[in-house]
Amino acid sequence: MASSWEKLASKKRDSILAAIPPEWRLPQPLPTPEAQKVVAGSYVRQFLSAREVEITENDAVTITEHTTSGKWKATEVVTAFCHRAALAHQLTNCLHEIFFEQAIEHAKRLDAAFAAGNGPIGPLHGLPVSFKDQFHVKGVETTMGYVGWIDTFEGLKGTGKEKNVDSELVREAKALGAVPFCKTSLPHTVMSGITWNNIVGFTLNPHNRLLSCGGSSGGEGALIGMRGSPIGFGTDIGGSIRIPSAFNGLYGIRPSFGRLPYAGAANSMPGQNTIPSVCGPLATSLGSLKLMLQAILSQEPWQHDPAVVELPWRDDLYTPLSAFGAKLTFGLLPTDGLVNPQPAIRRAFETVKDLIISMGHEVVEWKPPSQQNLVKLALEVFTADAGLDIWHHIGLSDETLASDVAALYGKEPGTPKTVDKMWEANLRLRQYQKEYMDYWNSTATMTKSGRPVDAVLTPVSAVPAFQFGKSIPIGYTPWVNALDYTSVVFPVTKVDKNIDTFDDQYRPINEADKQAWQENDPELEHGTPVGLQLVGRRLQEEKILGLVDLISTSLAAKQKIM
Amino acid sequence: MASSWEKLASKKRDSILAAIPPEWRLPQPLPTPEAQKVVAGSYVRQFLSAREVEITENDAVTITEHTTSGKWKATEVVTAFCHRAALAHQLTNCLHEIFFEQAIEHAKRLDAAFAAGNGPIGPLHGLPVSFKDQFHVKGVETTMGYVGWIDTFEGLKGTGKEKNVDSELVREAKALGAVPFCKTSLPHTVMSGITWNNIVGFTLNPHNRLLSCGGSSGGEGALIGMRGSPIGFGTDIGGSIRIPSAFNGLYGIRPSFGRLPYAGAANSMPGQNTIPSVCGPLATSLGSLKLMLQAILSQEPWQHDPAVVELPWRDDLYTPLSAFGAKLTFGLLPTDGLVNPQPAIRRAFETVKDLIISMGHEVVEWKPPSQQNLVKLALEVFTADAGLDIWHHIGLSDETLASDVAALYGKEPGTPKTVDKMWEANLRLRQYQKEYMDYWNSTATMTKSGRPVDAVLTPVSAVPAFQFGKSIPIGYTPWVNALDYTSVVFPVTKVDKNIDTFDDQYRPINEADKQAWQENDPELEHGTPVGLQLVGRRLQEEKILGLVDLISTSLAAKQKIM
Repeated sequence: MASSWEKLASKKRDSILAAIPPEWRLPQPLPTPEAQKVVAGSYVRQFLSAREVEITENDAVTITEHTTSGKWKATEVVTAFCHRAALAHQLTNCLHEIFFEQAIEHAKRLDAAFAAGNGPIGPLHGLPVSFKDQFHVKGVETTMGYVGWIDTFEGLKGTGKEKNVDSELVREAKALGAVPFCKTSLPHTVMSGITWNNIVGFTLNPHNRLLSCGGSSGGEGALIGMRGSPIGFGTDIGGSIRIPSAFNGLYGIRPSFGRLPYAGAANSMPGQNTIPSVCGPLATSLGSLKLMLQAILSQEPWQHDPAVVELPWRDDLYTPLSAFGAKLTFGLLPTDGLVNPQPAIRRAFETVKDLIISMGHEVVEWKPPSQQNLVKLALEVFTADAGLDIWHHIGLSDETLASDVAALYGKEPGTPKTVDKMWEANLRLRQYQKEYMDYWNSTATMTKSGRPVDAVLTPVSAVPAFQFGKSIPIGYTPWVNALDYTSVVFPVTKVDKNIDTFDDQYRPINEADKQAWQENDPELEHGTPVGLQLVGRRLQEEKILGLVDLISTSLAAKQKIM
Repeated sequence: MASSWEKLASKKRDSILAAIPPEWRLPQPLPTPEAQKVVAGSYVRQFLSAREVEITENDAVTITEHTTSGKWKATEVVTAFCHRAALAHQLTNCLHEIFFEQAIEHAKRLDAAFAAGNGPIGPLHGLPVSFKDQFHVKGVETTMGYVGWIDTFEGLKGTGKEKNVDSELVREAKALGAVPFCKTSLPHTVMSGITWNNIVGFTLNPHNRLLSCGGSSGGEGALIGMRGSPIGFGTDIGGSIRIPSAFNGLYGIRPSFGRLPYAGAANSMPGQNTIPSVCGPLATSLGSLKLMLQAILSQEPWQHDPAVVELPWRDDLYTPLSAFGAKLTFGLLPTDGLVNPQPAIRRAFETVKDLIISMGHEVVEWKPPSQQNLVKLALEVFTADAGLDIWHHIGLSDETLASDVAALYGKEPGTPKTVDKMWEANLRLRQYQKEYMDYWNSTATMTKSGRPVDAVLTPVSAVPAFQFGKSIPIGYTPWVNALDYTSVVFPVTKVDKNIDTFDDQYRPINEADKQAWQENDPELEHGTPVGLQLVGRRLQEEKILGLVDLISTSLAAKQKIM
């Protein structure tokens, strides 16, 4: 017999599906992942009209060009994305909250205001935007994947806030004309690179349903990877925006802390302020990220979220060639030194490296102070309360904890660190940050320009996408959080089993590396997107977006020729 | 018989005095505070040449005009301030480290470089700058008032760093041409509003040696109040720059965290990152603060201190009338609601209020969410480790702990909070910050401009200066730290026993208020400077400096007429 929490979870799961209009439901039985590995692209298109395909395969930049000029109606755009999101959910389990009706009503009001002669409400007029299920949106609930949060506000009953508040980011997006229309899946606790919870189960990678979409902003990754949303917001405390961006062939930015407003969003261990989580968009184009950052910053979030720094969009930093000289320098960091990248990642890295050189820029080997120390320290910080917070929320329903999270936090709450130990860790972190900064400055002596390296190119993960039930190496991302650096992920290629063949001559450097190597399966991974990240210094969002623009534009031109 | 730590402290005290050249020593016996209450101004001038008086009574702006143009030699300027600082120390106990010879050698090198045709080394060429004894300066030690730190680096022996490092701020000041020449006294632990330690004893207020100079940057307050330094750096975690600025008739700024570099400076509980300490200058003029901030920011401290935000000096925010419209609005907060201001403070407040109105600006009553909650939370955070850090450093020598610090931390180390409780406090703080921010935004509905209030005028303390052995009410300052707001202190008037008479009709609102009222002693306090603070939002240093410039200039003009 199903336990009480299983019933609750099942009811919630059913209610999500029930929110999909009958005409948008797929014929049963759905194909298995084995039978239909790829559901993005041509597979999903068959269920859409030509007009819906046209709309949903544009990026946020083009969409808003059309909606703010009145060429496209908000209602038509929002409805098309609702339809495609509904399909995405049925094929990948990527949604937690579906509120299409509310969104379409919202779009109608926007169209009415436009038609009344008021023009667009803002630069995001009529743009559908999805949100990871940490953000509150009026009218719907937030479970953050916890069964115990169903019918509550962040686990509490009777607060008056249930389904009744917008997180600050949501409020600002709406003020700009955006239309929230669904909230996306995530691993409960948010502390995992795989998106699984007891409500929707695993979220699948739409480019390869035999693999994970990544996490923790995995629902965003899968949904936008399906083009069920043009742009959406995730959060990143150790790679949670970047991993799903890379795994699903998307652009994503992990801004520095204090750039975008996190106020009023739910979180795990929300008072942890040593290596704080940040929010940022994932999208189908680089220009969409730029558009969104510019738009949100135009709302002066520093007037509404005490943690946000008063730093408007700096357009001069976006144009790197004029701002930083015609010759840029990139640091190259091909491996985290713990689990070496698999052949497809290596190939992506070499492709971009060669491209940078062919563009006339300089590359130097990046040999920073230990990033493994930073990753270790991040894990120490994330578990400093010995799991009290996550076990409290798991305990609300007594649901089972995801096994990979249990591997991090143990099978029951432990004894939290004392404050003096936490402060000692804070000091250690500051020392590491200073050492890394000094190293970065020292690269001025290595470059022809005499300036420090502009940005660092490095993989997002050793593997194209995590396999279910296999190892989850995460060493490529948390060091960026520990340093609070800016990182932008961009798609480079896809795994090709004919090129990225298994390297049977490879000599593993340690046990984790050996396991990842043994798990490399070109046949299985074929077709999975591969992305890389470009990392810049703290609060250098404009510069790194601009550099990725430069690289991506050149990469696209080259790939068109080839 | 003196204990071991008393001998060490006494030896250190003697070595400070011994660093004063014989020709600069005052005749013994020195006058008692009772016999010579005021030592600033005419009293100290008698020991200086007319030229030394001329030099030392200019502010940093005029001094650097003369040193960077070659009109004044760095050597002459530095020597004059060394002489006056030597006198200041003998009369107020304001110094911990005297390195006049090193400074004069430094100045000679600057003069030589200038003479060699290289011109000024930077905008602070030849400017003597003093530093609170938390900052490391190559060639001298740092005790931070702890006997146990004598002959060590922050309490550790054999680190190789002893007398061998510059804190980042010191490095940048030197790179700009500044000449560090002495380090100033502070209460050991830095957690007190009164400057006392076992090495130099009490530091006295040069305008009234029967009263405290305040703290914790009390040595800076006394030294600059004596014009023994034109400008110096203190730190502020709960009022430690602002209280000595007000008590000694100075300008001082508590910038927001991350504006100026703190890296490489010593501190109490240095890993405490919930309400962190910040550094900032105290000086004899508002223009000096502006000069220093502009100069330090020109060094791009964000490239050298990971905690500094990339925010160059924004000159457009400094000119408030053009940036914010001709009509500004000031919030008025005359009391902290716990200990009401004494008559002289009230008078200063009314003076500035009337001035603002007479300038054509608007004033509104400031009724924010509870600041007392913020003060309470700050104290909770500052004691979250139950004194482990300070008792460790006290324990290095077994010296006695200052009684007012013991009142805060208890007579022995306790049991530190656990991390989960600390994170809960962090959340509470964020909630308070958000509520306060929302209140500030809501004032847009109260102002004629329709914009939120520009800045808040409020006292720095309920009393002109703390009396030795009496109560130390500190409710006017820590709330600013908890909110991480910008605050600039400026001098307004002096206590006048004929105007600021004891209010025997006053009805105290609580026990603390009653005690402060009973301690009000116009006869004793006569002549003590009174300052106020103007508080702005986070990272609004330029705006608040600009507004204080406006007010101070107008105040000076008015006082000249009267």
